[in-house]
Amino acid sequence: MSILAVGSIAFDSIATPSGRVENILGGSATYFSLAASYFTQVRVVAVVGEDFTAEHENVLKKRGVETYGIEHAKGKTFRWGGQYLENLNEAKTDFTELNVFEKFHPRIPAEYNNSKFLFLGNIHPSLQAAVRREMSGVRLTGGDTMNFWIQGAHNELLQTLKLVNVLLINDGEAKMLAGETNLPRAAQKVLALGPQALVIKHGEYGATVFFREGAFGIGHHPFRAPALPIEEVKDPTGAGDSFAGGFMGYIASQEQLTREVFKRALFYGGVMGSFAVERFGTERLQSLTREEIEARFQVFRELTHLE
Amino acid sequence: MSILAVGSIAFDSIATPSGRVENILGGSATYFSLAASYFTQVRVVAVVGEDFTAEHENVLKKRGVETYGIEHAKGKTFRWGGQYLENLNEAKTDFTELNVFEKFHPRIPAEYNNSKFLFLGNIHPSLQAAVRREMSGVRLTGGDTMNFWIQGAHNELLQTLKLVNVLLINDGEAKMLAGETNLPRAAQKVLALGPQALVIKHGEYGATVFFREGAFGIGHHPFRAPALPIEEVKDPTGAGDSFAGGFMGYIASQEQLTREVFKRALFYGGVMGSFAVERFGTERLQSLTREEIEARFQVFRELTHLE
Repeated sequence: MSILAVGSIAFDSIATPSGRVENILGGSATYFSLAASYFTQVRVVAVVGEDFTAEHENVLKKRGVETYGIEHAKGKTFRWGGQYLENLNEAKTDFTELNVFEKFHPRIPAEYNNSKFLFLGNIHPSLQAAVRREMSGVRLTGGDTMNFWIQGAHNELLQTLKLVNVLLINDGEAKMLAGETNLPRAAQKVLALGPQALVIKHGEYGATVFFREGAFGIGHHPFRAPALPIEEVKDPTGAGDSFAGGFMGYIASQEQLTREVFKRALFYGGVMGSFAVERFGTERLQSLTREEIEARFQVFRELTHLE
Repeated sequence: MSILAVGSIAFDSIATPSGRVENILGGSATYFSLAASYFTQVRVVAVVGEDFTAEHENVLKKRGVETYGIEHAKGKTFRWGGQYLENLNEAKTDFTELNVFEKFHPRIPAEYNNSKFLFLGNIHPSLQAAVRREMSGVRLTGGDTMNFWIQGAHNELLQTLKLVNVLLINDGEAKMLAGETNLPRAAQKVLALGPQALVIKHGEYGATVFFREGAFGIGHHPFRAPALPIEEVKDPTGAGDSFAGGFMGYIASQEQLTREVFKRALFYGGVMGSFAVERFGTERLQSLTREEIEARFQVFRELTHLE
């Protein structure tokens, strides 16, 4: 079933130990949509400037992503520059030019109204909530957020969390949001704020999904999936968004929303994240095959499963 | 089959958010031996002072650990004091009094000569090498080390690594030893120094075992086991040594040394580490049952395995 993704489209300038690129297509909605497109129909809502060409849009269209919801505004597209030095887990931002993204107010085209799944990328919590309220018919809503909103728009975020079924954040964000340094305790506190499931991303150590009691079936335990130990990470940009795309895309492709589906989704998230970092930008995500994805899923299984 | 463990016995004074204890029995050999004792026959070589009483020794004897190899020296037992503040993953050392441990030179009793497995706890690499050479009939040797020796006794450590089949260290130690910040590349470099298998411990994120090509069977992938997400960690002291005890103890209990055995051993390591931190000191490790251990093994499986 189709998934609507709201987020950013950006041009990124990135330096890593493997090289340097300038003004390549990026942004959370781009990575998310490309990753999810291998599992289900994806519809994107975002804003771009006059520098966003048909060629850029074709990157999404070639993967079957619906782009009616990309608003073309006067001015330049969101630009981000950053570098990964010693530590590939953390970017040092060189510049952020919000440009047209600064005034972004998501508009949902009529063609998207029947979407059954929704992913709220990392934008202002009030905008996330507005989109969610407009899409009242969705079956499941996933959402992302970040430290900037946890601190700067706390009350708005608390309102949004009541409308989100699955929240995807990293360790630091979960601890900050909960005001709690112990991770499983932080997870319980975040679940009490609204979501039925919480995915905490651990960077190179994978991710854990925690469930609220009784949500998506029974069970007493969280579930942990690894990340792939990768010898050459070319460019970590977009790994988290690609993870979210694989995770939500797989869920949207399933009839039943059981815990087992969420567990497999966590693996597919790791799979798509691992592909994303193998090349600069979205290059690797543009030309995968479902066979390559399934083969890597098996690698993740071998990495974690006893006989 | 029996395993000989060389390491420290200590009295620890520990403060954590859950409380404070003074001069309780600890040390790497103590945690290792207690954890391994649930799987196989354990023999310990260590040094203690005059303050080490029959009551202390009985903690080990009650678990069937052979204590002929505990040398009673003049003076006081090794003492360590530390606290875990916000971050339970890292201790802040208040004091270290080496006492009798400073002049420790391991002596292997004749009764231990037929041991088939050997674990070299975190002592000077030259002492580790001497013990290993003396125990020429062992089937498999595991070893631990730390930053202090990686920097301060580098050449001696390189010699020792040629005599160790399985090295157990943490992320930071692996990266320092390899001079490489990417973890899987660091692992390959460490394996090239001698060990056939390398276990890298990730603290609350679990552990990964990397194999040298062709060692212990065929396969192309490392294997990762999680740590248990624990809501109340009372005292993290000894978690790594308990992990090593569960890991090596399980291996020593098996007929065949296959990769599958190493994978299960990684889970048993996590299981024993998770028990250790539930109480201060060795309390929880003194009175476990094999049923409790198997039940927790199942929890680890549920935490990681798809249906």
